[in-house]
Amino acid sequence: MRIRQIDADATRNVKTRRRRHPFCTLASQMRSLSRALTLLSLVATLGVSAGATRKDSLPSWNDGESKAAIVGFVEAVSTKGSNYVPPAERIAVFDNDGTLWAEQPIYVQLAFALDRVRALSSRHPEWRQEQPFRAVLDGDLENLLAGGEEALTRLVMATHAGMTTDEFAATVLQWIETAKHPLTGRRYIDMVYQPMLELLAYLRANGFKTFIVSGGGIEFMRPWAERVYGVPPEQVIGSSIVTSFEMRNGVPVFVRNPAMNFVDDKAGKPVGINQHIGRRPIAAFGNSDGDLEMLQWTTAGTGARFALIVRHTDARREWAYDRQSSIGRLDHALDEARSKGWTVVDMARDWKVIYP
Amino acid sequence: MRIRQIDADATRNVKTRRRRHPFCTLASQMRSLSRALTLLSLVATLGVSAGATRKDSLPSWNDGESKAAIVGFVEAVSTKGSNYVPPAERIAVFDNDGTLWAEQPIYVQLAFALDRVRALSSRHPEWRQEQPFRAVLDGDLENLLAGGEEALTRLVMATHAGMTTDEFAATVLQWIETAKHPLTGRRYIDMVYQPMLELLAYLRANGFKTFIVSGGGIEFMRPWAERVYGVPPEQVIGSSIVTSFEMRNGVPVFVRNPAMNFVDDKAGKPVGINQHIGRRPIAAFGNSDGDLEMLQWTTAGTGARFALIVRHTDARREWAYDRQSSIGRLDHALDEARSKGWTVVDMARDWKVIYP
Repeated sequence: MRIRQIDADATRNVKTRRRRHPFCTLASQMRSLSRALTLLSLVATLGVSAGATRKDSLPSWNDGESKAAIVGFVEAVSTKGSNYVPPAERIAVFDNDGTLWAEQPIYVQLAFALDRVRALSSRHPEWRQEQPFRAVLDGDLENLLAGGEEALTRLVMATHAGMTTDEFAATVLQWIETAKHPLTGRRYIDMVYQPMLELLAYLRANGFKTFIVSGGGIEFMRPWAERVYGVPPEQVIGSSIVTSFEMRNGVPVFVRNPAMNFVDDKAGKPVGINQHIGRRPIAAFGNSDGDLEMLQWTTAGTGARFALIVRHTDARREWAYDRQSSIGRLDHALDEARSKGWTVVDMARDWKVIYP
Repeated sequence: MRIRQIDADATRNVKTRRRRHPFCTLASQMRSLSRALTLLSLVATLGVSAGATRKDSLPSWNDGESKAAIVGFVEAVSTKGSNYVPPAERIAVFDNDGTLWAEQPIYVQLAFALDRVRALSSRHPEWRQEQPFRAVLDGDLENLLAGGEEALTRLVMATHAGMTTDEFAATVLQWIETAKHPLTGRRYIDMVYQPMLELLAYLRANGFKTFIVSGGGIEFMRPWAERVYGVPPEQVIGSSIVTSFEMRNGVPVFVRNPAMNFVDDKAGKPVGINQHIGRRPIAAFGNSDGDLEMLQWTTAGTGARFALIVRHTDARREWAYDRQSSIGRLDHALDEARSKGWTVVDMARDWKVIYP
C-alpha cells in the first residue's frame, strides 16, 4: 500500500514536470534532485518492512503453519498497531544444540572434549589407567557414558581448564575449522540448520537482537558464533567455569579453573537471561526439555510473545528423536507446547533443506 | 550495494525512456535521480565522521589535553587507517559511581538501602534493638560504618533480597524518581555528569557499544540506566545476588535470595567483562582503584586503546578527593595512569559544567 503511494507520487511529478518544462534546464534537475532525495528517504524508511513483505526471507521453509506463525509474529511486532514492540525490546533467544545445529549422536562439545583427551594423552600417561580417560582412549563410549555426569565433568575439567581464555579460544577455533562429524563426514560447523540461519537473519532485519542461550560452554561458542550465526560474543550466554584474573609477567590474563561457575540449562536458562540481558525476551526458540523454563519465562510476559520448538522428525536427512532420547529429550516441553499453542516445527515437513 | 542496484535500474530506465522521449522529460529526471542517489550515498557514508569533526560533540568539555585525547582516539579508530577498529569491536566500558554520577558522601545505593530500612522498619520492630539497623534508624552513620563490610552486607541483604526481581525494580524506580541528595537538594538521578553523558553519546554516534561495569548492583542500575545513560539493560554489568527461578501459581518469577552471586569490583570487573561481553574493550573509563584492573585489561590489548580516569578535583562544584578517601579512593590507579600515560580528567579544569 505504501509502495503504491510512492509510485502514485512519482507519476504525479512526471506529469507536473512535463507541463512546465518543455526543455531541459538546471532548474528541473535541481527540483528532481530534491524530489529524489525525498523519495530515497521514504524508501529508506520503508526499506525493512517493504523488503520483508515482498521477498521471501525464509526460502528454506516450506509454506505452512510454522512459517506463517513466524512471519505473522514478526510483522505484528514490527508494524505500528496493538502488537507493536519497540526495537529495543525485540529480544529473541535461541538454544544452540539441536536448535541451531545438530546434536546427535553426542553434543559437539563432547566430541571436542574427546578429541582433546586424545590430543593431550601423550602428556598424561596416567590416563591409560584412569577412568573416564581410559574409556575415551579405548573409544569405549558406552563405558564413558556409564560414568554419568561425574565422568563427564571430570572430562570437561581436564580438557577445558588449566589454560588462559585466549589459549582455549585458539584451541576451539583450530578444532572447529577442521573437525568432522563421524557419520555425515561434514564439518560440525557445516551442520548448522540453514532454515534457522535464515530465521536469525530475518529477525535481525526486523530490528530484533538475537541471543544464544545454550547449555554448552559460553567460551566454546563465542570464538565462532559471530561468523557462523551472526551473533556477537556479548550476545552469547552459556555455561561457564570459574575464571580468574591474573597478572603474568605484568600482562593480565584470564585463567580457566576446574570448577563450575554457572550451568545454563533448564531453570538456569531464564536465570542466565536475567543475568545477561536483564529484560524478558519476546521470542524464544528451543528443541528440548532443557529449554522449557526459557520458553515459559518468555511467554509469561504481556503483549505479543512467540515460542517455537524444533522437533527432530527427519530420520532420513537428520535424526528423529524426542521423548526417549538421552540427548535433547523432548517430552514435557512437547506437552506444554501443545497445551499452550506454541509453534512446533516438524523438520521433515517444514524444512526444504537441513544444512547450508 | 542496494544503492548501486537502484542506480543500475535507473540507468536502464533512462535508456529505454530516452528513445521514447526525445525532449526533456522523465529522462533528465531519472539522470538527476541517479546522480542524487550517488550523492546521497556519499553523504550517508561520510555522515558520521563529518558530523563528528564539524560540530563539537563535547560542548561541556573545555579545550585541553583530555578532550583532545578523547577526540583523537575516537577519530583514529573510526577512520580507515592503521588504527581503524571495526564497529563490532568498538566496545567502551564505564564505571558508574564517581565516573558517571556522584558518589559522595556515600554511594547512592547505600542511601537507597538506608531509606529502605526506614521504610520497612514498621514491619521489623526487632530492628530497634539490632545492629546495624538500629544505627540506621538512629541516623548514626558513624556507628553503621564502624560495623564494616559485614554490617553493610547485612543491610543490603535485608533490603535487596526476599522479593521478586519485578518487585525490586519497581521499588528502585519509585525511589530514584524522587530521592534527593541531602547536601545538594538535587535528585540523585540529576547528579549524573553532563560531560560524561556527552561522551557516552559521542562514542555511540561513532559506532561504539557502551557498557556500564559497576561495583553497584546490576538490578539497581538497570531499571533507569537506559533512560538516563542511554545504556540498555543488556549492556549493564554489576554486582549481583543469587537469583532463582520459581513458579508461583503457574507464573514464573525470579526471586532475589540473600547471598552474593558476583562482586563486580577490582579484579571482578574484567572477569565480569569477560563473562558478559566476551571480548576485550578498546576504551575504559573509571575514577578509582576499583577500576584499575579493568583499565589494565583494556589497555593490554593490541591496537588502539584508551583509558581515562575522572579525578575529583572540584571541591566547589562537586567534591575533591583521591588517595585518602574511603569512598572512591584513587591511589594506585593514579600512579599507574601517570606511568602509562592514561588520560586523567581534572574535573575543575576540564569540565565546564558538572550536572545537566
